[in-house]
Amino acid sequence: MTQLQGIAASSGIAIAKVYRLEAPDLSFDKKDIEQPEQEVKRLHEALETSKTELEKIKEHTRKSLGDEHAEIFSAHLLVLSDPELIHPIEDKIKSENVNAEAALSETANMFIDMFKSMDNEYMRERAADINDVTKRVMAHLLGVTFPDPALINEEVVIVADDLTPSDTAQLNKQFVKGFTTDIGGRTSHSAIMARSLEIPAVVGTKNITSQAGKDTMIIVDGMNGDVIINPSKEQMTEYKQKQEDFEKQKQEWAKLKDEATVTSEGDHVELVANIGTPDDVEGVLNNGGEGVGLYRTEFLYMGKSQLPTEEEQYDAYSSVLKQMGDKPVVVRTLDIGGDKELDYLDLPEEMNPFLGYRAIRLCLERDDIFRVQLRALLRASVHGNLKIMFPMIATLEEFRQAKAILEEERTNLKEEGNNISENIEVGMMVEIPATAVIARQFAKEVDFFSIGTNDLIQYTMAADRMNERVSYLYQPYNPAILNLVNNVIEAAHAEGKWAGMCGEMAGDEIAIPLLLGLGLDEFSMSATSILPARTQIRDLSKKEWTSYKDEILSMGTAEEVVAFVKEKTQVK
Amino acid sequence: MTQLQGIAASSGIAIAKVYRLEAPDLSFDKKDIEQPEQEVKRLHEALETSKTELEKIKEHTRKSLGDEHAEIFSAHLLVLSDPELIHPIEDKIKSENVNAEAALSETANMFIDMFKSMDNEYMRERAADINDVTKRVMAHLLGVTFPDPALINEEVVIVADDLTPSDTAQLNKQFVKGFTTDIGGRTSHSAIMARSLEIPAVVGTKNITSQAGKDTMIIVDGMNGDVIINPSKEQMTEYKQKQEDFEKQKQEWAKLKDEATVTSEGDHVELVANIGTPDDVEGVLNNGGEGVGLYRTEFLYMGKSQLPTEEEQYDAYSSVLKQMGDKPVVVRTLDIGGDKELDYLDLPEEMNPFLGYRAIRLCLERDDIFRVQLRALLRASVHGNLKIMFPMIATLEEFRQAKAILEEERTNLKEEGNNISENIEVGMMVEIPATAVIARQFAKEVDFFSIGTNDLIQYTMAADRMNERVSYLYQPYNPAILNLVNNVIEAAHAEGKWAGMCGEMAGDEIAIPLLLGLGLDEFSMSATSILPARTQIRDLSKKEWTSYKDEILSMGTAEEVVAFVKEKTQVK
Repeated sequence: MTQLQGIAASSGIAIAKVYRLEAPDLSFDKKDIEQPEQEVKRLHEALETSKTELEKIKEHTRKSLGDEHAEIFSAHLLVLSDPELIHPIEDKIKSENVNAEAALSETANMFIDMFKSMDNEYMRERAADINDVTKRVMAHLLGVTFPDPALINEEVVIVADDLTPSDTAQLNKQFVKGFTTDIGGRTSHSAIMARSLEIPAVVGTKNITSQAGKDTMIIVDGMNGDVIINPSKEQMTEYKQKQEDFEKQKQEWAKLKDEATVTSEGDHVELVANIGTPDDVEGVLNNGGEGVGLYRTEFLYMGKSQLPTEEEQYDAYSSVLKQMGDKPVVVRTLDIGGDKELDYLDLPEEMNPFLGYRAIRLCLERDDIFRVQLRALLRASVHGNLKIMFPMIATLEEFRQAKAILEEERTNLKEEGNNISENIEVGMMVEIPATAVIARQFAKEVDFFSIGTNDLIQYTMAADRMNERVSYLYQPYNPAILNLVNNVIEAAHAEGKWAGMCGEMAGDEIAIPLLLGLGLDEFSMSATSILPARTQIRDLSKKEWTSYKDEILSMGTAEEVVAFVKEKTQVK
Repeated sequence: MTQLQGIAASSGIAIAKVYRLEAPDLSFDKKDIEQPEQEVKRLHEALETSKTELEKIKEHTRKSLGDEHAEIFSAHLLVLSDPELIHPIEDKIKSENVNAEAALSETANMFIDMFKSMDNEYMRERAADINDVTKRVMAHLLGVTFPDPALINEEVVIVADDLTPSDTAQLNKQFVKGFTTDIGGRTSHSAIMARSLEIPAVVGTKNITSQAGKDTMIIVDGMNGDVIINPSKEQMTEYKQKQEDFEKQKQEWAKLKDEATVTSEGDHVELVANIGTPDDVEGVLNNGGEGVGLYRTEFLYMGKSQLPTEEEQYDAYSSVLKQMGDKPVVVRTLDIGGDKELDYLDLPEEMNPFLGYRAIRLCLERDDIFRVQLRALLRASVHGNLKIMFPMIATLEEFRQAKAILEEERTNLKEEGNNISENIEVGMMVEIPATAVIARQFAKEVDFFSIGTNDLIQYTMAADRMNERVSYLYQPYNPAILNLVNNVIEAAHAEGKWAGMCGEMAGDEIAIPLLLGLGLDEFSMSATSILPARTQIRDLSKKEWTSYKDEILSMGTAEEVVAFVKEKTQVK
């Protein structure tokens, strides 16, 4: 028996024998060549074959996992067409007279090293993308076949150095009971996909591939990050029990699907979901979501060569609204810039993109883009219960300006003879500290607040959460964050408005009792977190947690807050 | 008569005839060469001559303007020794068989374009540095002489496309009455130097060089940014009066040099100065500073090839403390990282350096560096009235940890037989929103707060002030900022501590009445702002401004705040 500890990436227990997913041998000889044109041709053939394969995988992913997950393959396809990558390879072939394999490998490695050397997770993901894509091209140049996880037809746990997004997207849940890898983190693409597929996964074990041989029995505990190779009889029994308990718990959660979200004393709060595309609505309804708390509209704009038209947007928004019926749908207007770039917009390179030209700042300047989105939203409003919110608002002037543009387009559309709902609430994200501090002033003018904790925490603590060296400062439970959240909720209630939260914090087990005590009205989270949260809330007393409010808000550190919550609840 | 509007970069009125400072003709022919070794040798000779010249200019600057200004030439000297610049030039000469001029020009332009394309001021300054330095090298390659502003011997106003730091540093105030340029901003090196030299300047006029011929009469109004070519008689009279008024006002200010800073009702506040090196103390005392509110210690670490020793630091700190006598000296411990890099520390490249690994975050991890500084400070403490503050504190744990290290070194030093003052106050910068929000919790453990508004505003508004596209969000008068400042001051006073401010806001005419009303105890600013601020405060009633507090704090926008202050005061 060998036990390893990794990062719990996707919940559940998998028990099956090991399937080793191994990368093919991509070694090659660097050769001097005589006919560079011939090599460039070989390169382009390999690129084309790879593109065709990726198109297929993208289409498969779109069907099985939805547009948002398919997005990664649009990014991969763009890499394969990127002249900044392809031209240097061609140049190398021609100027150094080397074979395509050598030129591809050396150029790709240069880019990969460059991105890896930038010490942050986002750039490392870009390095991983290039690595993933160029390996496929290399395989075609060498004529070796790539492993195809879609061919697995017996129950296994996959063991690999790493799973690429293309590997993960092709996993068949019927046979692949779980997976575990040497590298990767909780936010890597494969981990995110595993959670959507509901396949248990433990990543970042560092050396599982050197420990787990083919066909060995293995247990993967996606809740705690434990991996057990060659388990003992007792362990098999123990984990089968755990597996059963987990399944039972899922069934318990499922029972609450159509129940209201109420505390132990019957106080109601709203549990809603974050979505990225119309395809995600099914998951929201299956998980008992009471609405959509955050519809991120960026996916409409990404992986494309031009801006989406008003009609394309109208179709997407209408589809979500129709599917959700009379349940509320909060749409966030375009939030690009920062780490989310659009090639066709030619945004400037910035020294601190998180403190830069993005979201509403960009939309107010480029109101040609903004108006198209607002028109599509207004026209779609008749199909459901639409609420609109603006991202990255820092000043009252910005909110007023954005709302004025919305009203202008409402007037224009009406004059053009369109029907538009008269009950669209217009609110804003609270994700910049300034707005949380003077929320009282904003509350007079908005219909609602939605607190975006991911950014709010980042700015309030002055720490980029993607930067590993300072990620310890990304502290949702820091009393400063709780005081700001409290300030926003109090301001909203004083003006008879409601306050929601759509950052990761809203679905967090430690945060939920705290937020209940602060009086949060709406919790927006990933669809799969809704039923566990509903279960947790049914056991909590709002009265009790409200009574702790002053004590918690005057604590000094996040550590004290966490200890307090753990003491008062059963949360481990 | 022609009138142009530029950016007011340095106060005062200059009236004199135009002196055109023109760049020499640096055009050259690109030639194929036979002996690349010969060209590389020519390159290195030009590099060496340039280094010798820059060393001289640096030494001259150090004497006339102090270490901080001389720093820019250390940066220039580093450029001339940077293998990342020099090797590509040598390679080009050897691989392409071109002359040194062509290789230098093409390589430098590549770097300059790269830095310029990054849309932020900091990178553009780096581009300007490389441009400045490589032009000097080019002049030596071509054997043409560089204009030398040190040779000017009659009263003139310099007109130029741009002034390089080396030009500005050599200006002789006796003859150069002012300058005006096509390009540049308020924070470019030449503007900063002009303020230190007290030479009136207007930069960024866009096209002064195409308008103002040699020997024409010209007026430069460094207060309003106006430049008048060929002024009328009336204008000459008007501006001579303005010039006289400005001189009189300076004399009025000078009278207050040894006066206390009191409001119209006799309430005292402390006006202290920001300094960078021991050489700056003279300016503080000449301008009637009541102490040093921010001693930035980074300059000890910059433009060097290794860390400063404990002795070097001890000498610098002791020198400042001795010169200041019993006046308080607040020393900020090392604040590097972010935009301030040290080559020899090999800091990681970060996606958002302002939200990254810097200041106390770095010092707590690299306590080997931190302890040396703390030991030097503790040993120097016996020579004056030392207060120590830590930068970029985000959590109570960080403050506790930093203070614990300080106390450990105190114990160590005492055991080694050193005398150490027993009255060193230990405080912190409030520049991260989290600390301003829960200042009450911090106030229990610190001796004082110093609000660093430059960063606090940047984080609270989520806007990089170096980024022109979002610099409109850098709003010192935003009610959110004022509410945070108020929170910090109230928290300090509730615990019997004091609160100061050391960002640019503390010396700002609009901000001063507001800060007085919020109860700020200490205002730290550039030395030359102290006397104007003292003059302003003598006319203000603290009682009156305290009575406006609630009204101001509940305003919605910066615009409202500014309008209110302007209405209540004579500030234009």
